Amino acid sequence: MAVRVDLMISLDGFATTMDQTPEVPFGEDWPRLVGAYTATRTFRERVFKDTSGAGTTGIDDDYAREYFENVGAEIMGAGMFGLHNFPDDPNWRGWWGEEPPFRVPVFVLTHTARPTLEMAGGTTFHFIDTTPIDALQQAEKVAGGKDVRVGGGATVVRDFLKAGLVDRLHVAITPILLGRGIRLWDDLRGLEAGYTVKSETAPSGTIHLTFRR
Amino acid sequence: MAVRVDLMISLDGFATTMDQTPEVPFGEDWPRLVGAYTATRTFRERVFKDTSGAGTTGIDDDYAREYFENVGAEIMGAGMFGLHNFPDDPNWRGWWGEEPPFRVPVFVLTHTARPTLEMAGGTTFHFIDTTPIDALQQAEKVAGGKDVRVGGGATVVRDFLKAGLVDRLHVAITPILLGRGIRLWDDLRGLEAGYTVKSETAPSGTIHLTFRR
Repeated sequence: MAVRVDLMISLDGFATTMDQTPEVPFGEDWPRLVGAYTATRTFRERVFKDTSGAGTTGIDDDYAREYFENVGAEIMGAGMFGLHNFPDDPNWRGWWGEEPPFRVPVFVLTHTARPTLEMAGGTTFHFIDTTPIDALQQAEKVAGGKDVRVGGGATVVRDFLKAGLVDRLHVAITPILLGRGIRLWDDLRGLEAGYTVKSETAPSGTIHLTFRR
Repeated sequence: MAVRVDLMISLDGFATTMDQTPEVPFGEDWPRLVGAYTATRTFRERVFKDTSGAGTTGIDDDYAREYFENVGAEIMGAGMFGLHNFPDDPNWRGWWGEEPPFRVPVFVLTHTARPTLEMAGGTTFHFIDTTPIDALQQAEKVAGGKDVRVGGGATVVRDFLKAGLVDRLHVAITPILLGRGIRLWDDLRGLEAGYTVKSETAPSGTIHLTFRR
Protein backbone atom coordinates (compact mmCIF):
# COMPACT_ATOMS: atom_id res chain seq x y z
CA MET A 1 0.00 0.00 0.00
CA ALA A 2 1.51 3.29 -1.10
CA VAL A 3 0.17 6.79 -1.54
CA ARG A 4 0.89 7.89 -5.08
CA VAL A 5 0.76 11.04 -7.16
CA ASP A 6 1.09 11.34 -10.94
CA LEU A 7 1.00 14.80 -12.49
CA MET A 8 2.02 16.54 -15.69
CA ILE A 9 3.60 19.95 -15.33
CA SER A 10 5.21 22.47 -17.63
CA LEU A 11 8.90 23.33 -17.44
CA ASP A 12 7.99 26.42 -15.42
CA GLY A 13 6.12 24.23 -12.93
CA PHE A 14 2.47 24.79 -13.76
CA ALA A 15 0.27 21.74 -13.18
CA THR A 16 -3.07 23.37 -13.79
CA THR A 17 -3.83 25.85 -16.52
CA MET A 18 -5.94 28.89 -15.73
CA ASP A 19 -7.53 29.87 -19.02
CA GLN A 20 -10.67 27.76 -18.75
CA THR A 21 -13.83 28.98 -20.43
CA PRO A 22 -17.24 27.29 -20.77
CA GLU A 23 -16.24 26.35 -24.35
CA VAL A 24 -12.75 25.12 -23.42
CA PRO A 25 -13.23 23.64 -19.95
CA PHE A 26 -9.58 22.65 -19.41
CA GLY A 27 -8.17 25.71 -21.14
CA GLU A 28 -6.35 26.15 -24.42
CA ASP A 29 -3.00 25.23 -22.86
CA TRP A 30 -4.21 21.84 -21.69
CA PRO A 31 -3.70 19.86 -24.92
CA ARG A 32 -0.09 21.01 -25.20
CA LEU A 33 0.58 20.21 -21.55
CA VAL A 34 -0.81 16.67 -21.59
CA GLY A 35 -0.37 15.87 -25.30
CA ALA A 36 2.38 13.27 -24.89
CA TYR A 37 0.25 11.43 -22.33
CA THR A 38 -3.10 11.52 -24.14
CA ALA A 39 -1.29 10.28 -27.28
CA THR A 40 -0.29 7.01 -25.59
CA ARG A 41 -1.96 3.73 -26.48
CA THR A 42 -2.91 3.16 -22.83
CA PHE A 43 -4.61 6.53 -22.41
CA ARG A 44 -6.49 6.20 -25.71
CA GLU A 45 -7.77 2.81 -24.70
CA ARG A 46 -8.58 3.56 -21.09
CA VAL A 47 -9.97 7.10 -21.34
CA PHE A 48 -11.07 7.50 -24.96
CA LYS A 49 -12.31 3.84 -25.22
CA ASP A 50 -10.27 3.49 -28.41
CA THR A 51 -9.60 -0.24 -28.71
CA SER A 52 -7.97 -0.03 -32.17
CA GLY A 53 -4.48 -0.29 -30.66
CA ALA A 54 -3.59 3.18 -31.96
CA GLY A 55 -1.37 5.45 -29.89
CA THR A 56 2.29 5.75 -28.91
CA THR A 57 4.21 3.07 -27.08
CA GLY A 58 7.53 3.32 -25.25
CA ILE A 59 8.48 5.31 -22.15
CA ASP A 60 5.42 7.61 -22.05
CA ASP A 61 3.09 4.66 -22.51
CA ASP A 62 4.91 2.66 -19.81
CA TYR A 63 4.20 5.46 -17.33
CA ALA A 64 0.60 5.73 -18.56
CA ARG A 65 0.11 2.00 -17.96
CA GLU A 66 1.68 2.26 -14.52
CA TYR A 67 -0.71 5.12 -13.82
CA PHE A 68 -3.66 2.73 -13.86
CA GLU A 69 -1.96 -0.23 -12.18
CA ASN A 70 -2.62 -1.32 -8.60
CA VAL A 71 -4.75 1.68 -7.60
CA GLY A 72 -7.50 0.80 -5.08
CA ALA A 73 -8.91 4.26 -4.41
CA GLU A 74 -8.44 7.83 -5.57
CA ILE A 75 -8.63 11.24 -3.88
CA MET A 76 -9.17 14.45 -5.83
CA GLY A 77 -9.98 18.09 -5.28
CA ALA A 78 -13.32 19.71 -6.07
CA GLY A 79 -11.76 21.55 -9.02
CA MET A 80 -10.55 18.35 -10.66
CA PHE A 81 -14.07 16.91 -10.45
CA GLY A 82 -15.40 20.11 -12.04
CA LEU A 83 -17.20 21.62 -9.05
CA HIS A 84 -15.52 25.01 -9.57
CA ASN A 85 -16.82 25.10 -13.14
CA PHE A 86 -20.33 23.84 -12.34
CA PRO A 87 -20.90 24.79 -8.67
CA ASP A 88 -24.66 25.13 -8.98
CA ASP A 89 -25.48 22.10 -11.09
CA PRO A 90 -26.71 19.26 -8.85
CA ASN A 91 -26.72 16.94 -11.88
CA TRP A 92 -23.02 17.40 -12.71
CA ARG A 93 -21.35 13.97 -12.85
CA GLY A 94 -17.72 14.84 -13.65
CA TRP A 95 -15.76 15.19 -16.89
CA TRP A 96 -15.40 11.51 -17.70
CA GLY A 97 -18.84 10.37 -18.91
CA GLU A 98 -20.94 7.57 -17.46
CA GLU A 99 -18.03 5.11 -17.29
CA PRO A 100 -15.07 7.03 -15.82
CA PRO A 101 -11.57 5.54 -16.19
CA PHE A 102 -10.93 5.23 -12.43
CA ARG A 103 -12.96 2.05 -11.76
CA VAL A 104 -12.41 2.42 -8.00
CA PRO A 105 -13.91 4.52 -5.18
CA VAL A 106 -13.03 8.19 -5.66
CA PHE A 107 -13.12 10.67 -2.77
CA VAL A 108 -13.77 14.24 -3.87
CA LEU A 109 -12.71 16.87 -1.31
CA THR A 110 -15.38 19.56 -1.16
CA HIS A 111 -16.99 21.78 1.45
CA THR A 112 -20.43 21.25 -0.09
CA ALA A 113 -22.16 17.93 0.59
CA ARG A 114 -23.43 15.94 -2.41
CA PRO A 115 -24.98 12.48 -2.61
CA THR A 116 -22.65 9.63 -3.59
CA LEU A 117 -22.58 8.90 -7.35
CA GLU A 118 -22.39 5.31 -8.53
CA MET A 119 -21.07 5.24 -12.08
CA ALA A 120 -20.65 2.36 -14.51
CA GLY A 121 -17.44 0.30 -14.52
CA GLY A 122 -16.70 0.39 -10.80
CA THR A 123 -16.23 4.11 -10.17
CA THR A 124 -18.08 5.59 -7.17
CA PHE A 125 -17.68 9.27 -6.31
CA HIS A 126 -17.89 10.10 -2.60
CA PHE A 127 -17.98 13.79 -1.63
CA ILE A 128 -16.25 14.49 1.68
CA ASP A 129 -15.36 17.59 3.66
CA THR A 130 -12.29 16.67 5.66
CA THR A 131 -8.50 16.87 6.13
CA PRO A 132 -5.91 15.16 3.90
CA ILE A 133 -5.02 12.59 6.56
CA ASP A 134 -8.65 11.68 7.24
CA ALA A 135 -9.44 11.44 3.53
CA LEU A 136 -6.46 9.12 3.19
CA GLN A 137 -7.69 6.90 6.02
CA GLN A 138 -11.14 6.65 4.41
CA ALA A 139 -9.56 5.80 1.04
CA GLU A 140 -7.23 3.19 2.53
CA LYS A 141 -10.18 1.41 4.14
CA VAL A 142 -11.76 0.70 0.74
CA ALA A 143 -8.55 0.28 -1.31
CA GLY A 144 -8.28 -3.43 -0.61
CA GLY A 145 -4.58 -3.26 0.14
CA LYS A 146 -3.82 -1.50 -3.15
CA ASP A 147 -2.38 1.99 -3.58
CA VAL A 148 -4.25 5.23 -3.01
CA ARG A 149 -3.71 7.90 -5.61
CA VAL A 150 -3.98 11.60 -4.94
CA GLY A 151 -5.12 12.62 -8.40
CA GLY A 152 -5.00 16.41 -8.31
CA GLY A 153 -5.23 19.28 -8.84
CA ALA A 154 -1.97 20.91 -7.94
CA THR A 155 -3.22 22.56 -4.75
CA VAL A 156 -4.54 19.30 -3.32
CA VAL A 157 -1.36 17.44 -4.27
CA ARG A 158 0.73 20.13 -2.59
CA ASP A 159 -1.35 19.78 0.60
CA PHE A 160 -0.61 16.04 0.70
CA LEU A 161 3.07 16.56 -0.10
CA LYS A 162 3.43 19.21 2.61
CA ALA A 163 1.76 16.86 5.11
CA GLY A 164 4.37 14.20 4.25
CA LEU A 165 1.69 11.75 3.10
CA VAL A 166 3.00 10.84 -0.37
CA ASP A 167 5.18 7.76 -0.91
CA ARG A 168 5.67 8.04 -4.65
CA LEU A 169 5.49 11.21 -6.72
CA HIS A 170 5.74 10.85 -10.48
CA VAL A 171 5.94 14.12 -12.38
CA ALA A 172 6.04 14.27 -16.16
CA ILE A 173 7.55 17.56 -17.26
CA THR A 174 6.51 18.83 -20.69
CA PRO A 175 9.24 21.13 -22.08
CA ILE A 176 6.99 24.12 -22.67
CA LEU A 177 6.64 27.39 -20.75
CA LEU A 178 3.07 28.30 -19.80
CA GLY A 179 3.84 31.37 -17.70
CA ARG A 180 0.52 31.09 -15.84
CA GLY A 181 -1.56 28.60 -13.89
CA ILE A 182 -1.12 26.92 -10.51
CA ARG A 183 2.43 26.00 -9.53
CA LEU A 184 3.03 22.52 -8.17
CA TRP A 185 6.34 23.30 -6.45
CA ASP A 186 5.48 26.34 -4.32
CA ASP A 187 6.55 26.09 -0.68
CA LEU A 188 8.05 22.62 -1.00
CA ARG A 189 11.67 23.49 -0.18
CA GLY A 190 13.67 20.37 0.68
CA LEU A 191 10.95 17.93 -0.44
CA GLU A 192 13.62 15.69 -1.99
CA ALA A 193 14.97 14.76 1.46
CA GLY A 194 13.76 11.29 2.32
CA TYR A 195 13.12 10.38 -1.31
CA THR A 196 15.30 8.81 -3.95
CA VAL A 197 14.84 10.61 -7.25
CA LYS A 198 14.97 8.97 -10.66
CA SER A 199 14.87 10.97 -13.91
CA GLU A 200 14.30 9.65 -17.38
CA THR A 201 13.52 11.32 -20.73
CA ALA A 202 11.15 10.05 -23.40
CA PRO A 203 11.56 10.58 -27.16
CA SER A 204 8.55 12.95 -26.97
CA GLY A 205 10.78 15.30 -24.93
CA THR A 206 8.82 14.59 -21.75
CA ILE A 207 10.97 14.28 -18.63
CA HIS A 208 9.74 11.69 -16.14
CA LEU A 209 10.81 12.32 -12.56
CA THR A 210 9.96 9.89 -9.80
CA PHE A 211 10.41 10.61 -6.08
CA ARG A 212 10.19 7.35 -4.15
CA ARG A 213 10.67 6.57 -0.48
CA MET B 1 28.56 32.76 -34.19
CA ALA B 2 25.78 31.98 -31.73
CA VAL B 3 24.57 33.59 -28.53
CA ARG B 4 24.59 30.96 -25.80
CA VAL B 5 23.36 30.52 -22.26
CA ASP B 6 24.26 27.74 -19.83
CA LEU B 7 22.61 27.75 -16.42
CA MET B 8 21.91 25.37 -13.58
CA ILE B 9 18.49 25.60 -11.97
CA SER B 10 16.56 23.69 -9.34
CA LEU B 11 13.45 21.68 -10.16
CA ASP B 12 11.36 24.59 -8.94
CA GLY B 13 13.16 26.90 -11.36
CA PHE B 14 15.55 28.87 -9.16
CA ALA B 15 18.80 29.79 -10.88
CA THR B 16 20.22 32.01 -8.19
CA THR B 17 20.07 31.34 -4.49
CA MET B 18 19.25 34.18 -2.14
CA ASP B 19 20.80 33.19 1.16
CA GLN B 20 24.21 34.78 0.62
CA THR B 21 26.13 36.01 3.64
CA PRO B 22 29.65 37.48 3.86
CA GLU B 23 30.84 34.06 5.10
CA VAL B 24 28.96 32.07 2.42
CA PRO B 25 29.04 34.37 -0.61
CA PHE B 26 27.03 32.09 -2.93
CA GLY B 27 24.68 30.88 -0.21
CA GLU B 28 24.33 27.52 1.52
CA ASP B 29 22.13 26.18 -1.30
CA TRP B 30 24.74 26.78 -3.95
CA PRO B 31 26.83 23.61 -3.52
CA ARG B 32 23.74 21.40 -3.80
CA LEU B 33 22.53 23.27 -6.86
CA VAL B 34 25.77 23.09 -8.82
CA GLY B 35 27.30 19.98 -7.23
CA ALA B 36 26.98 17.70 -10.26
CA TYR B 37 28.70 20.33 -12.39
CA THR B 38 31.54 21.24 -10.02
CA ALA B 39 32.23 17.51 -9.59
CA THR B 40 33.10 17.07 -13.27
CA ARG B 41 36.67 16.56 -14.40
CA THR B 42 36.41 19.56 -16.75
CA PHE B 43 35.21 21.95 -14.05
CA ARG B 44 37.85 20.75 -11.58
CA GLU B 45 40.57 21.27 -14.13
CA ARG B 46 39.36 24.55 -15.55
CA VAL B 47 38.08 26.33 -12.44
CA PHE B 48 39.82 24.60 -9.51
CA LYS B 49 43.12 24.15 -11.47
CA ASP B 50 43.10 20.48 -10.45
CA THR B 51 45.18 18.73 -13.12
CA SER B 52 45.13 15.33 -11.41
CA GLY B 53 42.40 14.06 -13.74
CA ALA B 54 40.02 13.60 -10.82
CA GLY B 55 36.31 14.28 -11.31
CA THR B 56 33.31 12.71 -12.99
CA THR B 57 33.14 11.94 -16.68
CA GLY B 58 30.09 11.16 -18.83
CA ILE B 59 27.09 13.31 -19.69
CA ASP B 60 27.61 16.03 -17.06
CA ASP B 61 31.27 16.35 -18.03
CA ASP B 62 30.40 16.46 -21.74
CA TYR B 63 28.20 19.49 -21.07
CA ALA B 64 30.87 21.04 -18.85
CA ARG B 65 33.42 20.68 -21.64
CA GLU B 66 31.01 22.15 -24.16
CA TYR B 67 30.51 25.04 -21.76
CA PHE B 68 34.07 26.21 -22.35
CA GLU B 69 34.29 25.41 -26.06
CA ASN B 70 34.20 28.02 -28.81
CA VAL B 71 33.33 31.00 -26.58
CA GLY B 72 34.88 34.27 -27.77
CA ALA B 73 33.35 36.70 -25.29
CA GLU B 74 31.11 36.64 -22.23
CA ILE B 75 28.44 38.98 -20.84
CA MET B 76 27.39 38.89 -17.18
CA GLY B 77 25.38 40.88 -14.70
CA ALA B 78 26.85 42.98 -11.92
CA GLY B 79 25.63 40.44 -9.36
CA MET B 80 27.45 37.57 -10.98
CA PHE B 81 30.69 39.55 -10.87
CA GLY B 82 30.04 40.26 -7.19
CA LEU B 83 29.26 43.96 -7.35
CA HIS B 84 26.11 43.53 -5.25
CA ASN B 85 28.14 41.87 -2.51
CA PHE B 86 31.06 44.32 -2.66
CA PRO B 87 29.58 47.53 -4.07
CA ASP B 88 32.00 49.86 -2.29
CA ASP B 89 35.26 48.01 -2.81
CA PRO B 90 37.16 49.54 -5.75
CA ASN B 91 39.71 46.72 -5.48
CA TRP B 92 37.20 43.89 -5.95
CA ARG B 93 38.38 41.69 -8.85
CA GLY B 94 35.62 39.04 -9.03
CA TRP B 95 35.20 35.60 -7.46
CA TRP B 96 37.63 33.71 -9.66
CA GLY B 97 41.10 34.73 -8.50
CA GLU B 98 43.86 36.28 -10.60
CA GLU B 99 43.43 33.79 -13.45
CA PRO B 100 39.68 33.48 -14.10
CA PRO B 101 38.41 30.53 -16.14
CA PHE B 102 36.87 32.66 -18.92
CA ARG B 103 40.10 33.50 -20.84
CA VAL B 104 38.16 35.88 -23.11
CA PRO B 105 36.84 39.46 -22.86
CA VAL B 106 34.02 39.65 -20.30
CA PHE B 107 31.47 42.47 -20.34
CA VAL B 108 29.96 43.19 -16.93
CA LEU B 109 26.65 45.07 -17.07
CA THR B 110 26.65 47.71 -14.32
CA HIS B 111 25.39 51.23 -13.84
CA THR B 112 28.60 52.23 -12.02
CA ALA B 113 31.70 52.83 -14.13
CA ARG B 114 34.88 50.94 -13.21
CA PRO B 115 38.24 50.78 -14.96
CA THR B 116 38.87 47.75 -17.17
CA LEU B 117 40.59 44.85 -15.37
CA GLU B 118 43.20 42.82 -17.21
CA MET B 119 43.60 39.46 -15.53
CA ALA B 120 46.03 36.62 -16.17
CA GLY B 121 45.22 33.94 -18.76
CA GLY B 122 43.36 36.10 -21.28
CA THR B 123 40.40 37.35 -19.23
CA THR B 124 39.65 41.07 -19.40
CA PHE B 125 36.68 42.52 -17.49
CA HIS B 126 35.00 45.52 -19.14
CA PHE B 127 32.31 47.35 -17.15
CA ILE B 128 29.56 48.76 -19.34
CA ASP B 129 26.23 50.50 -18.71
CA THR B 130 24.08 49.64 -21.70
CA THR B 131 21.22 47.58 -23.19
CA PRO B 132 21.35 43.82 -23.90
CA ILE B 133 21.50 44.37 -27.67
CA ASP B 134 24.31 46.91 -27.45
CA ALA B 135 26.28 44.74 -25.02
CA LEU B 136 25.92 41.89 -27.49
CA GLN B 137 27.21 44.02 -30.35
CA GLN B 138 30.25 45.04 -28.31
CA ALA B 139 30.89 41.40 -27.38
CA GLU B 140 30.51 40.15 -30.95
CA LYS B 141 33.11 42.67 -32.13
CA VAL B 142 35.82 41.09 -29.98
CA ALA B 143 34.64 37.45 -30.12
CA GLY B 144 36.64 36.67 -33.26
CA GLY B 145 33.74 34.85 -34.90
CA LYS B 146 33.23 32.59 -31.90
CA ASP B 147 30.12 32.37 -29.71
CA VAL B 148 29.09 34.95 -27.13
CA ARG B 149 27.88 33.55 -23.84
CA VAL B 150 25.42 35.31 -21.57
CA GLY B 151 26.72 33.92 -18.31
CA GLY B 152 24.16 35.03 -15.74
CA GLY B 153 22.63 35.67 -13.36
CA ALA B 154 19.06 34.68 -13.93
CA THR B 155 17.71 38.21 -14.33
CA VAL B 156 20.25 39.11 -17.02
CA VAL B 157 19.62 35.83 -18.85
CA ARG B 158 15.87 36.46 -18.76
CA ASP B 159 16.40 39.94 -20.26
CA PHE B 160 18.31 38.41 -23.18
CA LEU B 161 15.74 35.62 -23.64
CA LYS B 162 12.85 38.08 -23.60
CA ALA B 163 14.63 40.22 -26.20
CA GLY B 164 14.89 37.13 -28.45
CA LEU B 165 18.69 37.32 -28.50
CA VAL B 166 19.62 33.78 -27.43
CA ASP B 167 20.32 31.07 -30.02
CA ARG B 168 21.12 28.22 -27.66
CA LEU B 169 19.90 27.82 -24.10
CA HIS B 170 21.27 24.90 -22.10
CA VAL B 171 19.67 24.42 -18.70
CA ALA B 172 20.83 21.74 -16.29
CA ILE B 173 18.05 20.98 -13.83
CA THR B 174 19.12 19.63 -10.45
CA PRO B 175 16.28 17.56 -8.94
CA ILE B 176 16.06 19.50 -5.68
CA LEU B 177 13.51 22.04 -4.47
CA LEU B 178 14.98 25.29 -3.18
CA GLY B 179 11.74 27.17 -2.59
CA ARG B 180 13.51 30.55 -2.78
CA GLY B 181 15.83 32.51 -5.01
CA ILE B 182 15.45 34.11 -8.44
CA ARG B 183 13.30 32.22 -10.93
CA LEU B 184 14.70 31.76 -14.42
CA TRP B 185 11.36 31.04 -16.10
CA ASP B 186 9.21 33.99 -15.02
CA ASP B 187 7.38 35.78 -17.85
CA LEU B 188 8.73 33.53 -20.59
CA ARG B 189 5.44 32.01 -21.77
CA GLY B 190 5.83 30.40 -25.18
CA LEU B 191 9.64 30.65 -25.23
CA GLU B 192 9.84 27.17 -26.79
CA ALA B 193 8.31 28.45 -30.05
CA GLY B 194 11.11 28.80 -32.59
CA TYR B 195 13.41 26.41 -30.74
CA THR B 196 13.86 22.67 -30.95
CA VAL B 197 14.16 21.21 -27.47
CA LYS B 198 16.33 18.25 -26.53
CA SER B 199 16.22 16.62 -23.09
CA GLU B 200 18.69 14.15 -21.66
CA THR B 201 19.29 12.81 -18.15
CA ALA B 202 22.64 12.11 -16.53
CA PRO B 203 23.35 9.36 -13.96
CA SER B 204 23.77 12.16 -11.37
CA GLY B 205 20.02 12.84 -11.77
CA THR B 206 20.70 16.12 -13.56
CA ILE B 207 18.35 16.82 -16.47
CA HIS B 208 19.99 18.58 -19.40
CA LEU B 209 17.61 20.59 -21.58
CA THR B 210 18.81 22.37 -24.70
CA PHE B 211 16.75 24.89 -26.63
CA ARG B 212 18.33 25.44 -30.03
CA ARG B 213 17.24 27.47 -33.05
